[in-house]
Amino acid sequence: MPLDRDAAHYLFGVMRLKQGAEVLLFNGADGEWRATVAEAGKRGGTLEPQRRTRPQTMPPDLWLMFAPVKKARTDFIVEKAVEMGVRRLLPVATEFTNSERIRQDRLQSHAREAAEQCGATFVPEVADLAKLPDVLSAWPEDRRLMFCDEAQAGGDGPAARPFAEAGGPGPWAVLIGPEGGFSDRERARLHAMEAAHVASLGPRILRADTAAVAAITLWQLRFGDWT
Amino acid sequence: MPLDRDAAHYLFGVMRLKQGAEVLLFNGADGEWRATVAEAGKRGGTLEPQRRTRPQTMPPDLWLMFAPVKKARTDFIVEKAVEMGVRRLLPVATEFTNSERIRQDRLQSHAREAAEQCGATFVPEVADLAKLPDVLSAWPEDRRLMFCDEAQAGGDGPAARPFAEAGGPGPWAVLIGPEGGFSDRERARLHAMEAAHVASLGPRILRADTAAVAAITLWQLRFGDWT
Repeated sequence: MPLDRDAAHYLFGVMRLKQGAEVLLFNGADGEWRATVAEAGKRGGTLEPQRRTRPQTMPPDLWLMFAPVKKARTDFIVEKAVEMGVRRLLPVATEFTNSERIRQDRLQSHAREAAEQCGATFVPEVADLAKLPDVLSAWPEDRRLMFCDEAQAGGDGPAARPFAEAGGPGPWAVLIGPEGGFSDRERARLHAMEAAHVASLGPRILRADTAAVAAITLWQLRFGDWT
Repeated sequence: MPLDRDAAHYLFGVMRLKQGAEVLLFNGADGEWRATVAEAGKRGGTLEPQRRTRPQTMPPDLWLMFAPVKKARTDFIVEKAVEMGVRRLLPVATEFTNSERIRQDRLQSHAREAAEQCGATFVPEVADLAKLPDVLSAWPEDRRLMFCDEAQAGGDGPAARPFAEAGGPGPWAVLIGPEGGFSDRERARLHAMEAAHVASLGPRILRADTAAVAAITLWQLRFGDWT
């Protein structure tokens, strides 16, 4: 297996591996493999896969949608989501989102590193930042949406069904709002969606990264692979 | 209400509050109060409580026991535990714990800051680092213990009851192991405890800070104040 320049730099420049050294490989489709370094160069090299050490395992079909917060906490959200088991990460800009931009490439690398750290064989895709209304307008018909609404009082409009009453498995997404919460308009829009289910994360105010872990735990217990 | 030197330095030196400025106060017993600055000096001052803005609310009688990890992640565990609602934090040294020491005073300040951030009116006590066997030897008779065991295969000894089958409320503790897991001896000891219940946090390996949030979520849903 040929290595590109970045991988060669990391393995042979940073980690200083020599010919014959062993590494664990995964590509998100074929499980985890033990491989040996066949050739080690400054700008390239080759790995020779030896045997499969773990089968491919996919996380459940769960997306995490989150409003980017400060850099360190956004990194944490990505790391935690990978550990907890999600299929796709969608950063969304809401009315009260502080960050207008994300470094998609940096978050994607961060997701890869988190997968390496926790022994996952799958790296979720990190999508580009999109506006929440745009994401909701193109919402896939068969995917349900769990959102956590601190201001449970729903106002005059329709109220989304409680997550506790959602039945059956299938594709889902978990939406974590920004630290300032959703706007009234966003809240009304979410509550009016057929696919939406509202969940409570307790009586205390959680930071966005804490809320992400708690909400994914809730979902995994109910519909995921935590048995 | 007189202020000590540290509080005066923070309010008048760092935050540059003047006489008449408003602050929110809590002492862990009387709820949250709005107060005004009556006197502001370099080494002291006085606050005048005006009215109670929130009643005192106590988290459920849950302890979090955790093996200290690297500084930033230990800080996160403390912060997350405060947000999620625990009554007491007990750092414990296990056989595979990397850190032999903690800065109890620093973690206690961190807990206070986390409570201020999330609008809690209670700051959990952070105990001094203790050895796990010592803590277990003095285990209070009426407190149950939920622990998360990655190596679910229990060996030859007795196996603790599953958390899912634990009944009734009452005092509890959640125990999060070090990133290297528990030793065989520790695992056998825990499984043999009458008070112990074992929980699963899914098929992936979680970092200690992620495991803390997930485990407290599990507990809060079952026995806590997340309704």
